[in-house]
Amino acid sequence: MTVNVGVIGAGMIGADHVRRLSTIVSGAQVTAVTDIDADRAASVAAGVGARSLATGQEVIDAADVDAVLVTSWGPAHAESVLGAIAAGKPVFCEKPLATTAEDCHKIIDAETAHGRRLVQVGFMRRYDAGYRAMKQVIDSGEIGTPLMVHCAHRNPTVPERYHSEMATHDTAVHEIDTVRWLLGDEIVSAQVLTPRRTSHRFEHLQDPQIMLFETAEGARVDVEVFVNCQYGYDIQCEAVGETGTVRLPDPAAPVVRSAGRQSGPVLQDWKDRFAEAYDVEIQEWVDSVAAGAVSGPSSWDGYAAAMICDANVEALHTGEIVSTGLKDRPAFYA
Amino acid sequence: MTVNVGVIGAGMIGADHVRRLSTIVSGAQVTAVTDIDADRAASVAAGVGARSLATGQEVIDAADVDAVLVTSWGPAHAESVLGAIAAGKPVFCEKPLATTAEDCHKIIDAETAHGRRLVQVGFMRRYDAGYRAMKQVIDSGEIGTPLMVHCAHRNPTVPERYHSEMATHDTAVHEIDTVRWLLGDEIVSAQVLTPRRTSHRFEHLQDPQIMLFETAEGARVDVEVFVNCQYGYDIQCEAVGETGTVRLPDPAAPVVRSAGRQSGPVLQDWKDRFAEAYDVEIQEWVDSVAAGAVSGPSSWDGYAAAMICDANVEALHTGEIVSTGLKDRPAFYA
Amino acid sequence: MTVNVGVIGAGMIGADHVRRLSTIVSGAQVTAVTDIDADRAASVAAGVGARSLATGQEVIDAADVDAVLVTSWGPAHAESVLGAIAAGKPVFCEKPLATTAEDCHKIIDAETAHGRRLVQVGFMRRYDAGYRAMKQVIDSGEIGTPLMVHCAHRNPTVPERYHSEMATHDTAVHEIDTVRWLLGDEIVSAQVLTPRRTSHRFEHLQDPQIMLFETAEGARVDVEVFVNCQYGYDIQCEAVGETGTVRLPDPAAPVVRSAGRQSGPVLQDWKDRFAEAYDVEIQEWVDSVAAGAVSGPSSWDGYAAAMICDANVEALHTGEIVSTGLKDRPAFYA
Amino acid sequence: MTVNVGVIGAGMIGADHVRRLSTIVSGAQVTAVTDIDADRAASVAAGVGARSLATGQEVIDAADVDAVLVTSWGPAHAESVLGAIAAGKPVFCEKPLATTAEDCHKIIDAETAHGRRLVQVGFMRRYDAGYRAMKQVIDSGEIGTPLMVHCAHRNPTVPERYHSEMATHDTAVHEIDTVRWLLGDEIVSAQVLTPRRTSHRFEHLQDPQIMLFETAEGARVDVEVFVNCQYGYDIQCEAVGETGTVRLPDPAAPVVRSAGRQSGPVLQDWKDRFAEAYDVEIQEWVDSVAAGAVSGPSSWDGYAAAMICDANVEALHTGEIVSTGLKDRPAFYA
Repeated sequence: MTVNVGVIGAGMIGADHVRRLSTIVSGAQVTAVTDIDADRAASVAAGVGARSLATGQEVIDAADVDAVLVTSWGPAHAESVLGAIAAGKPVFCEKPLATTAEDCHKIIDAETAHGRRLVQVGFMRRYDAGYRAMKQVIDSGEIGTPLMVHCAHRNPTVPERYHSEMATHDTAVHEIDTVRWLLGDEIVSAQVLTPRRTSHRFEHLQDPQIMLFETAEGARVDVEVFVNCQYGYDIQCEAVGETGTVRLPDPAAPVVRSAGRQSGPVLQDWKDRFAEAYDVEIQEWVDSVAAGAVSGPSSWDGYAAAMICDANVEALHTGEIVSTGLKDRPAFYA
Repeated sequence: MTVNVGVIGAGMIGADHVRRLSTIVSGAQVTAVTDIDADRAASVAAGVGARSLATGQEVIDAADVDAVLVTSWGPAHAESVLGAIAAGKPVFCEKPLATTAEDCHKIIDAETAHGRRLVQVGFMRRYDAGYRAMKQVIDSGEIGTPLMVHCAHRNPTVPERYHSEMATHDTAVHEIDTVRWLLGDEIVSAQVLTPRRTSHRFEHLQDPQIMLFETAEGARVDVEVFVNCQYGYDIQCEAVGETGTVRLPDPAAPVVRSAGRQSGPVLQDWKDRFAEAYDVEIQEWVDSVAAGAVSGPSSWDGYAAAMICDANVEALHTGEIVSTGLKDRPAFYA
Repeated sequence: MTVNVGVIGAGMIGADHVRRLSTIVSGAQVTAVTDIDADRAASVAAGVGARSLATGQEVIDAADVDAVLVTSWGPAHAESVLGAIAAGKPVFCEKPLATTAEDCHKIIDAETAHGRRLVQVGFMRRYDAGYRAMKQVIDSGEIGTPLMVHCAHRNPTVPERYHSEMATHDTAVHEIDTVRWLLGDEIVSAQVLTPRRTSHRFEHLQDPQIMLFETAEGARVDVEVFVNCQYGYDIQCEAVGETGTVRLPDPAAPVVRSAGRQSGPVLQDWKDRFAEAYDVEIQEWVDSVAAGAVSGPSSWDGYAAAMICDANVEALHTGEIVSTGLKDRPAFYA
Repeated sequence: MTVNVGVIGAGMIGADHVRRLSTIVSGAQVTAVTDIDADRAASVAAGVGARSLATGQEVIDAADVDAVLVTSWGPAHAESVLGAIAAGKPVFCEKPLATTAEDCHKIIDAETAHGRRLVQVGFMRRYDAGYRAMKQVIDSGEIGTPLMVHCAHRNPTVPERYHSEMATHDTAVHEIDTVRWLLGDEIVSAQVLTPRRTSHRFEHLQDPQIMLFETAEGARVDVEVFVNCQYGYDIQCEAVGETGTVRLPDPAAPVVRSAGRQSGPVLQDWKDRFAEAYDVEIQEWVDSVAAGAVSGPSSWDGYAAAMICDANVEALHTGEIVSTGLKDRPAFYA
């Protein structure tokens, strides 16, 4: 069975997923594309033999659309996701699930009312081979109960439009989801430290930041976010348990010895770092849709990320320890 | 465009390629399957909605077969490959291309007469990300002209039917092809050293072996083959050039610290080590067939491997340095 | 010239330094030893052909003592160091310099009045080859201005008498001194996070702890202290600068591949980790005494460590961010 | 007890050992120095408060010389070593023990006649922490019976006077001794492969060379010697046993991430690589002299190295496999 996918939003990430669905993923084809820029939608659709449609609702309603992929800009996500739920169609939504916790909650309510999971949120790190191997080690009990996680998220540079709150919403949000998933635990409070700023940044930006989270079980998580580190795109993660530690591997690369150094590359682009994770993510989503059982990051995960990010931004501005207000996960998302 | 593939040989590797073409590779479907065991062909074909046919020739001739994949046992390869060439259809042949140099040469003659490349041989290491990164370093000139390559090919164990000549034909053949490709050079002689045998082997087997090759340009290649090393499946390769060295990376894996050790896994199965290389190999083959331009390992590479393996086996038995007899590569395969 | 050393305190660390001065260090001999346990002093002295004396003052005053090494218990340090200053003799004092900031200040005053440096404090990590290489990288400008330092200090286990404040005074004190030295910067505030406690500890102990320091220049330092980590003695340090990072190397050790793992040892004992640093430390001290110019960690460094530790312990108890109260370093210690 | 050492030969390595004995090694002092250049002897002696003497025999005979260190040029070694044996004094001789196998045998005969070991040969790699840790792993049985050893010995460049035979006598001689010691086995034959020469060399020199040794137990050893590798001084060694492998560690060094690379230094100078090994070697020799029991590399090891080097040079010139002619080790050297 081939899964027919309708795509809402044909920007950079949307076009990339269209390419992925057409040339890499097995068992899927893109049948409909829409975008606020109709020409862009037409062009992307034509490239893969799909139709372009005028609105997201038309995509959702199309008879030849089995599942919906939402890659529009963040504020438009909730409407499309709610529309897909109303139509009873599986929907993959790039992060954020919605730009407000309130909208996230509406989605949770609608999906719960529908009675089974339809929504998957695009936290692709859960599909990275390195993180998966880390989780396997943690779950095996080899390092004992996790007590601490140390993370670093470094980008070479960011453009001027990147502001201090994006360090949470666009950058640390990946660590926030990943740590919740690695530990099977919830983040209950946030604090942000603001080190001396690098001189390689735009004036308005607090860079780096150190974010400190506490989980419901009492584990402590520190996340260094440093988005103008100059030297590369570098993702680090170490979990420390009662009896051992496990560290996320760097990407495999040949070691060269020349000119007095032994060296290997540091990646420069997040797309290179997580290209395979995206491929696996979408393949598994397509497979799960075909099997009738969506199982990736859920609406609850999208909601939790939104709550934690909001608390973290407040922590950045106030300097205080801020509660995330997250209560128990509903049984529906257990 | 979807490439319709007919598969000749539905054993372990054939069934694996059928699965790969159906569930991983994009842009292909299996339409016909044959095997000397008709039940097996029927079963594998049914699993992916393909027809089973009685003979390889029927598969080659089928109207809904655009390209042929040969995964029968070695002695049957030549006939199917020659049949596909006669039909003017692209054919992917698992190694060996043929079991005699003479048959390899017949294939080269037929393909050359046809006028453009149709044959690709299944040397999948050229599609491994680590080897590709190594080749990129070598081609960049960063280590200067290559002078030596040190290789090791270790398997945890082999079954009793594995005999001393298979160390060349089934095991070192991968290094033989890879080194030719990494260096862009030809192997002109072979010598085999026979170290003290491991006690963890069947009586009849010389294990380990050290194979010494010389290239046309004078580079020296040593290949340790050790197929009962017990500890894992471990592939090592280091190229030494005039100004530097480059080493094949080990697969990325988390480092665990526990119980007084820092450690990571060594793979146990060659399928785990090269699973992605197989996926990439078949995807690129399908893409090249769709684009009308086969470009992977050629009939010449299959022939050269056969000639080098023959010389190497003679070297094993005689203890002498044996010439491979390889002359210049025909312009057709440049 | 041979430096004659008098040793005050012949406990474990004192006896170890006596051995070091006698059998490893060049250009020194131990001539006098004292201890509150006279038998112990006699035994240690006899082992190296030295005299045992009744009191520290006798050691300080002895004509055949050129320099004094203080390895008594902490509360007795100040008296011996002040005595050596009064006698105008160089004195090496194991950490802490004194158990109160007030006593540290008396030593600073006495040494300053004397007019040139006589005191060296036993912060041996400054003599570790790995930390020295890290400092060289930082000082070279290769990673730019340091913005953050991430440290971990892990011991396999601690005895029952180890209590929560010792995580600062006995454990993190090393990171506190090392970071001040690596950065050439002062620590101005401290905060302590208390993760979920490991179950592998005595009841009274908060283990692990995460200590957060800020420097005068605004760099942020986090130190994980985990003294019952079970798996080994593991010291980690990474400095993050404006343009790059540098990481403390693990001790060199052979990598073994066996039984499906590649692995190396994690040390179990801090003495193994820093044995060479102790040797270098004492050798350089002896050399500096012979050259008439003491230059290692100073009384000011001992005082600063005391002030920072006091603030950190307060931070542990209050949960607040506590100022260390450290003002500018006197010119005498520049 | 202080060991009084007389030094014969005050060239670069001799002067270095004089410095080592005076400023690093504990329990020794240099009392007498000689050199064919009397001014040089006087200068080196004066620097450490020793006498300079006119001849090696005077040094050997001096009443204040307990032990002799021979660092003259190779052809003069045998005379000094034989003189020391005649005087019944322990003697440390830098490699080679003698420049002919015949002279080595005279030394063995004289030492055997004397009745207990007096001679230690300067194979300092046995004192390197990395090789010692490797040997510990091998001796523990963790990798099973060793079957192969792969070595590489690379220097950045060599001066014009370095010729092809020196690749054996001055370079590979270290691997030859180290492998004999690691395996506790004897080398019985040699073969040399001559790869394409690097263009970064003087005309007369075959560089690189690959040396192939077989041991009495049937283990195979390959040694890549490449003395103009440009990029650094790089020593590699991997032992492969029946159940596992162990690899010599690279020197510990901080990893820097900057400008798109993660990198660490490759040493440039053999003195940096083995500085500590030299210190340990001489310290242990001094300790063994003081204890009356010389135990390092023996005259037999010096003789075996000479025999193997001679065979290897013949192998280089003939292209043949050459027997080393080594018979059983005498009981005296067991």
